Amino acid sequence: MNRIITIAREFGSGGRELGVLLAEKLGYAYYDKEIISEIAKRTELSEEYVSAIVENRTHKMFPITIGRSIAMISNSTLLQQDISIYREQSRIIREMAEKSDCVIVGRCADFLLKDQNAFRIFVYSDMQSRIKRCREKGYEGSDLSDKEIQKKISEIDKSRADYYKNYTDQEWGKKENYDLMVNTTDCNMEELAEKLKAYITSE
Amino acid sequence: MNRIITIAREFGSGGRELGVLLAEKLGYAYYDKEIISEIAKRTELSEEYVSAIVENRTHKMFPITIGRSIAMISNSTLLQQDISIYREQSRIIREMAEKSDCVIVGRCADFLLKDQNAFRIFVYSDMQSRIKRCREKGYEGSDLSDKEIQKKISEIDKSRADYYKNYTDQEWGKKENYDLMVNTTDCNMEELAEKLKAYITSE
Repeated sequence: MNRIITIAREFGSGGRELGVLLAEKLGYAYYDKEIISEIAKRTELSEEYVSAIVENRTHKMFPITIGRSIAMISNSTLLQQDISIYREQSRIIREMAEKSDCVIVGRCADFLLKDQNAFRIFVYSDMQSRIKRCREKGYEGSDLSDKEIQKKISEIDKSRADYYKNYTDQEWGKKENYDLMVNTTDCNMEELAEKLKAYITSE
Repeated sequence: MNRIITIAREFGSGGRELGVLLAEKLGYAYYDKEIISEIAKRTELSEEYVSAIVENRTHKMFPITIGRSIAMISNSTLLQQDISIYREQSRIIREMAEKSDCVIVGRCADFLLKDQNAFRIFVYSDMQSRIKRCREKGYEGSDLSDKEIQKKISEIDKSRADYYKNYTDQEWGKKENYDLMVNTTDCNMEELAEKLKAYITSE
């Protein structure tokens, strides 16, 4: 059975960076944008639209492209679309996990791959260091005040929690849903990835 | 500066066993009962009484022995006593952390030694495996029904959380108060201690 690591993460905690580093150090595949491209291909929706749905951004910001034409569709069709995308995503994630050892960030992968013996990590850090990270990485809105950035961070976390709850009926970030929870506050990501590698590969 | 590991743990999650194994594997001192003996010596209270206070059991179950005589004392004296014991305990924990590399389980050590760069672990597991563990270890009350054991486990966790809140004004088990949170559900403790050793000693 392949070794699979899933990483769920609070926004601004550096979970994605940690995932990339960990995959590199372990020599595992890292799946991220490939999942979006594959869903787009299979559903004939645009990558931008699929990305918006799986990152759980609001519909209204995005023109809906089906194949090559822009369509006006109703709310119930949209909901149907979300569910189809989620189903396709789940199928692709399972296929990727069958292919080789891999690290998958987000996308309810911990829930989907629990029975494939996935090692489920949750990455978090305190609010101050998440705000600092958003500024350093120059994320959209990083020129806002600390209070405004904090509001944005909380909103994104809430949308992740809602998405997770919606599709898994589980609580996002609840410790029982993960094998290891890692606090990245004041941590060097390279060192942390090395530590995680040591933990995972120790017999 | 000495390397200090603190372990807070849900009742029945195996945190103490993990602490002992980890200290053995790392060659660190493990402080547990020594803390009780030392408090008893310094406060001239019986070890049994000190143990009852720091484990946060109720007063009424224990005759109060001061030096060699049994005393009748008021509630406010009792409260005063609790605070003195906590203060003595804090002093002793800090002294022990100054002496050598060590592992300390419970006793708000994560809070007390945060500024000494303690590596703060929280150990947890799902309720089913905690009930199973209580039965296997033959803890007091392990002949009860699952529901009754679960009630006892929840009560003990609640008293740990109350004790922690009382003395640190922090929430026990809140992820931001720990560097790493480890789920012991279905884990082999020896292997887990080896993994934690690899994590801690990796540079």
